[in-house]
Amino acid sequence: MTELAELSYALDTFYFLICGVLVMWMAAGFSMLEAGLVRSKNTAEILTKNIALFAIACTMYLLVGYSIMYSGNEGGILPNLGFLIGGENSVAAVTAGGDDAPYYSMRADFFFQVVFVATAMSIVSGAVAERMKLWAFLAFAVVMTGVIYPVSGYWTWGEGWLDAMGFSDFAGSGIVHLAGAAAALAGVLVLGPRKGKYGKDGSIHAIPGANLPLATLGTFILWMGWFGFNGGSELKLSDVVSANNVAQVLVNTNAAAAGGVITALILAKVWFRKADLTMALNGALAGLVAITAEPLEPTALGATLIGAVGGAIVVAAIVGLDKLKIDDPVGAISVHGVVGIWGLLAVPLTNGDASFGPQIIGGLSIFLWVFLASLAVWLILKAVMGIRVSEEEEYEGVDIAECGMEAYPEFSVANK
Amino acid sequence: MTELAELSYALDTFYFLICGVLVMWMAAGFSMLEAGLVRSKNTAEILTKNIALFAIACTMYLLVGYSIMYSGNEGGILPNLGFLIGGENSVAAVTAGGDDAPYYSMRADFFFQVVFVATAMSIVSGAVAERMKLWAFLAFAVVMTGVIYPVSGYWTWGEGWLDAMGFSDFAGSGIVHLAGAAAALAGVLVLGPRKGKYGKDGSIHAIPGANLPLATLGTFILWMGWFGFNGGSELKLSDVVSANNVAQVLVNTNAAAAGGVITALILAKVWFRKADLTMALNGALAGLVAITAEPLEPTALGATLIGAVGGAIVVAAIVGLDKLKIDDPVGAISVHGVVGIWGLLAVPLTNGDASFGPQIIGGLSIFLWVFLASLAVWLILKAVMGIRVSEEEEYEGVDIAECGMEAYPEFSVANK
Amino acid sequence: MTELAELSYALDTFYFLICGVLVMWMAAGFSMLEAGLVRSKNTAEILTKNIALFAIACTMYLLVGYSIMYSGNEGGILPNLGFLIGGENSVAAVTAGGDDAPYYSMRADFFFQVVFVATAMSIVSGAVAERMKLWAFLAFAVVMTGVIYPVSGYWTWGEGWLDAMGFSDFAGSGIVHLAGAAAALAGVLVLGPRKGKYGKDGSIHAIPGANLPLATLGTFILWMGWFGFNGGSELKLSDVVSANNVAQVLVNTNAAAAGGVITALILAKVWFRKADLTMALNGALAGLVAITAEPLEPTALGATLIGAVGGAIVVAAIVGLDKLKIDDPVGAISVHGVVGIWGLLAVPLTNGDASFGPQIIGGLSIFLWVFLASLAVWLILKAVMGIRVSEEEEYEGVDIAECGMEAYPEFSVANK
Repeated sequence: MTELAELSYALDTFYFLICGVLVMWMAAGFSMLEAGLVRSKNTAEILTKNIALFAIACTMYLLVGYSIMYSGNEGGILPNLGFLIGGENSVAAVTAGGDDAPYYSMRADFFFQVVFVATAMSIVSGAVAERMKLWAFLAFAVVMTGVIYPVSGYWTWGEGWLDAMGFSDFAGSGIVHLAGAAAALAGVLVLGPRKGKYGKDGSIHAIPGANLPLATLGTFILWMGWFGFNGGSELKLSDVVSANNVAQVLVNTNAAAAGGVITALILAKVWFRKADLTMALNGALAGLVAITAEPLEPTALGATLIGAVGGAIVVAAIVGLDKLKIDDPVGAISVHGVVGIWGLLAVPLTNGDASFGPQIIGGLSIFLWVFLASLAVWLILKAVMGIRVSEEEEYEGVDIAECGMEAYPEFSVANK
Repeated sequence: MTELAELSYALDTFYFLICGVLVMWMAAGFSMLEAGLVRSKNTAEILTKNIALFAIACTMYLLVGYSIMYSGNEGGILPNLGFLIGGENSVAAVTAGGDDAPYYSMRADFFFQVVFVATAMSIVSGAVAERMKLWAFLAFAVVMTGVIYPVSGYWTWGEGWLDAMGFSDFAGSGIVHLAGAAAALAGVLVLGPRKGKYGKDGSIHAIPGANLPLATLGTFILWMGWFGFNGGSELKLSDVVSANNVAQVLVNTNAAAAGGVITALILAKVWFRKADLTMALNGALAGLVAITAEPLEPTALGATLIGAVGGAIVVAAIVGLDKLKIDDPVGAISVHGVVGIWGLLAVPLTNGDASFGPQIIGGLSIFLWVFLASLAVWLILKAVMGIRVSEEEEYEGVDIAECGMEAYPEFSVANK
Repeated sequence: MTELAELSYALDTFYFLICGVLVMWMAAGFSMLEAGLVRSKNTAEILTKNIALFAIACTMYLLVGYSIMYSGNEGGILPNLGFLIGGENSVAAVTAGGDDAPYYSMRADFFFQVVFVATAMSIVSGAVAERMKLWAFLAFAVVMTGVIYPVSGYWTWGEGWLDAMGFSDFAGSGIVHLAGAAAALAGVLVLGPRKGKYGKDGSIHAIPGANLPLATLGTFILWMGWFGFNGGSELKLSDVVSANNVAQVLVNTNAAAAGGVITALILAKVWFRKADLTMALNGALAGLVAITAEPLEPTALGATLIGAVGGAIVVAAIVGLDKLKIDDPVGAISVHGVVGIWGLLAVPLTNGDASFGPQIIGGLSIFLWVFLASLAVWLILKAVMGIRVSEEEEYEGVDIAECGMEAYPEFSVANK
């Protein structure tokens, strides 16, 4: 390799690594967002879940997930599982230092991919908060990050059948966000709503989060991390076209988040007569999810609009899911699922190579696979070990029951 | 373009983007700093303001601000507004992918610039905290980020008359920080102090912030983000001289912040007999603001001293403004305004190309323009919609009145 | 220099700077971790300590530390102190722009090194929390960051005798983490445990931290910052081998942290019957410390195991130190000291160039030097100004006594 080619290789590798660091940072964002939106009695447990799921995701993806997702079975529905019986294991190849791609380090690719699967799993933890058993959740995380996510990930990014069909999902509105939301929805349906959320008379009771500065911090962390999430998904930086593309992706990612904040805030003001902070936060995240399927082709103004539509959708979706008595304490299903679908459908509006058919089939396939596989796992876990804490534990808070500690032991609590 | 030139282009673009990500992160820093320094009853509202102003800044700068600031009217006082009537629109050109500069992506430049204007606006939100109407503030943000900041920004960075005159402001002690403080001062004067801050007998009552860990976190975030703020303002990295310069800028930025902490802490200890944490935090920020006008020419020791002077000035300024009954809950006017002036005046001490005349004229021009334009906008907003919440709302806290929620609903509050 | 060489120089410089920014960010991580693990009445003071120690570290390392550490006395025990009497001062040379290394900016090297010394000092602040006088601590910081750390740092990274002997410590399990822990241990022994921690009947009382979301945030920040800490210690990125190595280091750093979380959490569950969040956090940090001495040679799976062993060790060490009545409120001595030793000893398991002899001698030398030098300083400080607050101040909390303010003035506190 020429010195110039080596330098180019180094720059692309560095770009991947920095983007990966930003995506890893999103784990902190989800932790803070969820810790801020639950009640104080359930805060230590959700923090435990978040750091543990990240660790599990990294380990399971290393052990099997990456090999499934990049199994090399081009155009197929099932990945090539030969690595389980002694065939080539992608990770072993990568981390032993062999098999480097021509233009950047495959180890950087692994780093970037491994933090993505953690993102998908983080989406689940918020939706099932305040009532699920910790160890049942972690058991689910093992299967989700080791198998479920990698299989549908393989379909597109592993060059499986969806990729062959023309399904277009730049950084994962579907593959990551909709997938996470589908697993969450299955969990929420099996689990049921929190005690006291829905009255027998059809009333809906708001359960405010205990620490909104934390939730806001989490949103800003996610916003920042998303520059790595979308920016790294261009996969190359080292020539003029690629560099311009990465820059455009960052401009658009930022613009979409801004658009989401503005519409969510205005819609909340018009609808509820209040400048609802949590809706503004969800609006930012909705804008980010919406642009994730295609952050390159729109102009910055177009990206603002795509995000703005996302911001409006998320407010409606949160209200709508509550009417359906689907209890999602942090709005994860609305943000990542409903808006993830919008993101997939928005691709053909600006990307001439995409069309609605494959987008719909792709979204539907990912949703159905992840939802049904997750449903099966949740039901098995329910039968084997139970997935819901006892009523008394739920009333007292899962922190004491599961973690034996309080998140804020000194702050006296007005209303448990 | 040769492959080598392409690689250089990619590296400079990447450098801009990463610096831009760090500056965007400063939005989280301002949010946490301000949320930590207000009372708990006003926390949700200031968080809402901060995320909303960031969204507005990004959108307004996209729509008109960038085109005003880089209108291409070299040496002039008024920008070329031809883009409003069909002339070339800088943003449209940029985000449509044309008009790339020879050595880095203009889209990365836009990304870097757009997060700067958000910084300027963030400065305002802290100073007017705890008593201003949310929507009046957001209306001001529209004008500030769309017009007021871009006009004075054009004077220097857009190659207008101040640039032609030799005014030197590397990363914006004046253009960003003093400008933000000038807008804040105008707002505070129109708005008046918080109820209970100044007694009729001339007494001054400290109103402690509710969450100092948050304020400390915000300061560290700003310190980190400032590496992008100052580091990116070298505008180029890809040769030996530029790379050395960027490294020097980071060394000096860090050294100045350290110097600011030390003098502020010692001065507070001597003056108030206590190691005042909030003064240490303001000292760090003062050091950062002080070095921002010239982070390249000083040695690291010189930068430490420039920051140290900033740290001393800010303690005196906070005490002084309180004596003048200018009520600034977070010290933003002192940190960004008073120390911003010191930063501008310190430039000729180490930079032989700068002299005091243009620095004074530049600082004064920026201050007067932003202050007077802002004053006009605040007065119009006061007449049209009112800018201050009712006495009862102020007593109850703006969170309930404006956002319909509490930031910490479960923590019982000792003293409202 | 050719244009290609200049570009390579720029890329390596940028890589150093970004890694340095990430390490600086660890200062925020330590601040949040420690602020979350102490009681609310001691929170403002530990925040003050953290920002002040960072400022002192940066200033002292600039004034003398860097010149001691890189004094150029190859293979020796004592650094060349000629710079004190007019010989070449490394920092002056560096920041005056001369003396650039052939392949990256020495100013970037200084930036990277200066944030390392702050890390070592941050380790101390947590262990002595809740009972030490603020100004005694800061006086210690002056000596530790100006002299003690640079001397043992010189032994290895400054090409002194340990380096000559074959001691191998990639990013500083010993040089940084064990050194910080040794200084902390000396401080804790002189200082004694907190009132009420150990009963006269041999009982041990848990003193829970006041804000676990903060502690979790701090852990995530440290995890993120560690990518710079270890990643930057490869010292070069700009060719294929180096780029692959940096990528491997990041993969392994992440894998080790994940392994640490998993074993710590499971061990805590088995031992205490609870999924102890603080143990999970310490497990993550232990995994990171464990891999720091050799993050390059292990495979990703090997790194997971090295981290996993670290996670198990830290749980046992925390319990063990408590039995010895060594009161370390945040577990810093266990995480950075005990696991730091494990990290040093694990190097020969995967790195054929290392052997146990030099590793043991190196670890022991660093420990003894830092421990004894620190002990002397702590004892002098105790004699001169006292290092422990009065019993009444400890009971009331050091925030009021030292800083004259409360960290959370509005949240009523259930149990002081």
